[in-house]
Amino acid sequence: MTISIPKGTRDFSPEEMVKRNHIFDTVKSVFKLYGYLPIETPAMENLGTLLGKYGEEGDKLLFKILNSGNFLDNVSSELLVADKYMPLTNKISEKGLRYDLTVPFARYVVQHRNDIVLPFRRYQIQPVWRADRPQKGRYREFFQCDADVVGSVSLLNEVELLQIIDAVFAELNIEITVKLNNRKILAGIAGMMMQSDRLTDITTAIDKIEKIGVDAVKQELADRGISEEQISILEPILCIEGDNREKLNKIEAVFLSAQNAEAGLAGIAELRTVLNCLDELNADSSSSVEIDFSLARGLNYYTGAIIEVKANNMEMGSICGGGRYDNLTGIFGMKDVSGVGISFGADRIYDVMTAKNLFPHNTVETTRILFANMGHGEAIYCLKALRKLRAAGISAEMYPDTVKLKKQMEYADKRGIPFVAIAGDSEILSESFTLKNMRLKTQIQVSLEELIDNVKIS
Amino acid sequence: MTISIPKGTRDFSPEEMVKRNHIFDTVKSVFKLYGYLPIETPAMENLGTLLGKYGEEGDKLLFKILNSGNFLDNVSSELLVADKYMPLTNKISEKGLRYDLTVPFARYVVQHRNDIVLPFRRYQIQPVWRADRPQKGRYREFFQCDADVVGSVSLLNEVELLQIIDAVFAELNIEITVKLNNRKILAGIAGMMMQSDRLTDITTAIDKIEKIGVDAVKQELADRGISEEQISILEPILCIEGDNREKLNKIEAVFLSAQNAEAGLAGIAELRTVLNCLDELNADSSSSVEIDFSLARGLNYYTGAIIEVKANNMEMGSICGGGRYDNLTGIFGMKDVSGVGISFGADRIYDVMTAKNLFPHNTVETTRILFANMGHGEAIYCLKALRKLRAAGISAEMYPDTVKLKKQMEYADKRGIPFVAIAGDSEILSESFTLKNMRLKTQIQVSLEELIDNVKIS
Repeated sequence: MTISIPKGTRDFSPEEMVKRNHIFDTVKSVFKLYGYLPIETPAMENLGTLLGKYGEEGDKLLFKILNSGNFLDNVSSELLVADKYMPLTNKISEKGLRYDLTVPFARYVVQHRNDIVLPFRRYQIQPVWRADRPQKGRYREFFQCDADVVGSVSLLNEVELLQIIDAVFAELNIEITVKLNNRKILAGIAGMMMQSDRLTDITTAIDKIEKIGVDAVKQELADRGISEEQISILEPILCIEGDNREKLNKIEAVFLSAQNAEAGLAGIAELRTVLNCLDELNADSSSSVEIDFSLARGLNYYTGAIIEVKANNMEMGSICGGGRYDNLTGIFGMKDVSGVGISFGADRIYDVMTAKNLFPHNTVETTRILFANMGHGEAIYCLKALRKLRAAGISAEMYPDTVKLKKQMEYADKRGIPFVAIAGDSEILSESFTLKNMRLKTQIQVSLEELIDNVKIS
Repeated sequence: MTISIPKGTRDFSPEEMVKRNHIFDTVKSVFKLYGYLPIETPAMENLGTLLGKYGEEGDKLLFKILNSGNFLDNVSSELLVADKYMPLTNKISEKGLRYDLTVPFARYVVQHRNDIVLPFRRYQIQPVWRADRPQKGRYREFFQCDADVVGSVSLLNEVELLQIIDAVFAELNIEITVKLNNRKILAGIAGMMMQSDRLTDITTAIDKIEKIGVDAVKQELADRGISEEQISILEPILCIEGDNREKLNKIEAVFLSAQNAEAGLAGIAELRTVLNCLDELNADSSSSVEIDFSLARGLNYYTGAIIEVKANNMEMGSICGGGRYDNLTGIFGMKDVSGVGISFGADRIYDVMTAKNLFPHNTVETTRILFANMGHGEAIYCLKALRKLRAAGISAEMYPDTVKLKKQMEYADKRGIPFVAIAGDSEILSESFTLKNMRLKTQIQVSLEELIDNVKIS
């Protein structure tokens, strides 16, 4: 029998759990400080809730649950042929595993609209599942940490989310660059080129400027069927350089002299408001915010701000991202509820922290002291002491079996437990313990009170 | 479009999350104090890992995942007929959602045997899924909180788990009775009756003694086909009364005068050892431990101790249970690894705490103070103050939109936020805030430092 787990999934060992919890706890504590409230939704959603929300490709990547019992009961025999698996799917499966936390959240808001007070700030930290081809850094089960505000159009929400990003990564000691764009600017570019349906081609090309240069980008656009005239309209934007304000001033000039670029001006105004607020508030910010007109994530989805976070000096995709969506609950029939949110990618953050050795070297979450087991009477003597240690908040354990002391010391060593206490007849007589410091290789004889003082994390 | 979630599943609102987290955090903190280490396993396991581990009924209750892509690709047409859904299932599904945390843990121990130091104390808090018929208090997605020790046969592990049970429920303020039995005593009873395969019938009948009396139980056993002679062998056990020691002495006398009851004597010795240790250690214990020879949960599974916890004065099933299993990893080919574990039922504990009004009335996890939004300049003034509050660890938020103050106050009221701060021109001039106490309906003018002092939870 081969013992394994499905590909693309993972077990988490105690060591990994402690590190992952460090990330989750940090994110959670910042969310809470900003007044975000926790919710959770079921792992399974009705397929009607999920299908059609992530594009055709997304529908294929949903994990679908086989109906219970005789799932073929009401299936007509015409569907039971090998080339009809798609229509058959809908007959034999009505539930799927959630693909992200945003669509379940939209469903939650609509379903519980009468119990929710708007504006509603919520956070949600749960696993999601995608039947993607597994590869390095891409899993079929992974955690998302989302924070969203719905029911408010104020740009102060964007500012707040950027502050949260800053606070989380400062706390985790990760140096980051925040890239910022606005869907309306992209709409302005597409509008003046009369190419609203080619936005992905255009932004993909703009994105390569730094790597391949203006001429190569123009060639690529031409290859993708963008006409010379349209490319010449775009060219001034390709050449925009400078700091954030310069970039905004330059693209403003382009939009002002172009046709059909009104949306772009609204986007510029929004970005300026956000940048001004950040300037007034984040004098001590450790992260830098960078306007990037090529940023286009979640194109079909976002309607205002687009946010993406990269770890500095790391070859890796974004470790956090988000944006504003004006119509998310619209898919469930609830109109005019604007939202803006961000999502932290716990797995990539974990990889960055591992690569840069950023996890704190504490042992807070593991056992501080092992009591050796020298026999039944000695064990009872130690177990009484253990009660007092635990009452003092110290994680402590006793070796459960009376085996050779050498084996028990090896256990403490392999587990990385820093202290071992031993009590034989003479210690019991003098109401004391022999306390071994496993790192310093020293030992002293102490009373229980002294032992607690020695072992406690100061 | 109907907006709903699959039956038997639940959304958790912020209020429910805070309460559930109180339970999880309590359980976790006790597990940690006893040196248990956290692990997590994937939601999906290979069906080969899950099938056959929970009996025939359990196999049916597994949620199975439809294979991705054209799942009919390698299915022969003979299988594609309505009455062959069982063999078809195995062709179109190779993964299932975990049904409990014990089998995935056994799989984990075997798969990672080279990285684990035995004895291995682990805890695991994750959801499980069962395609049970939903009913009050029974869900298709629910959380289990498990702690197990594997690789040690010492009865001190049983003692430790009983201490953990005591500590968790003392911390949660739930009064409990712990019922204790031993599979070997049941084996002794079955042995002397020569009815090893009828244990479930026998224990179910014994269990009814208090409700229906000895005669009715004897009648029921007869109805189930147990012979008069066998019933007369059992009768002395049906009549056992008294405290724990008396019960053990009386059943010992029965076993000593019977044939084929040696296993029972071993069970008595184990129970005495555990009770003696508890007496020596738990002088201040708040829970009572009660020997109950009818306790038979997980019959096919446990080989030693059997533990079940009930909340006092509540009509409800057990809120925690567990026992020793000598051969769990054997199903995955790893022999001679004994284990003992307990599992807390978070949902039932939640229901008990709700019914008995035991959740602490603090607002630690929710927003302490709302800053009203009186316009852009005022908002910036408040946002600067908010940074300081959050740095002081106070959960605080600003109303994101500049709307009527009345609406903002209503928001604070509905959310249960205890303080509201307001700053207009005059407050800004004097570098102060008007601080409203929403409960006392008072307001004072304060500096930022005074505001922090007022709002802080002392």
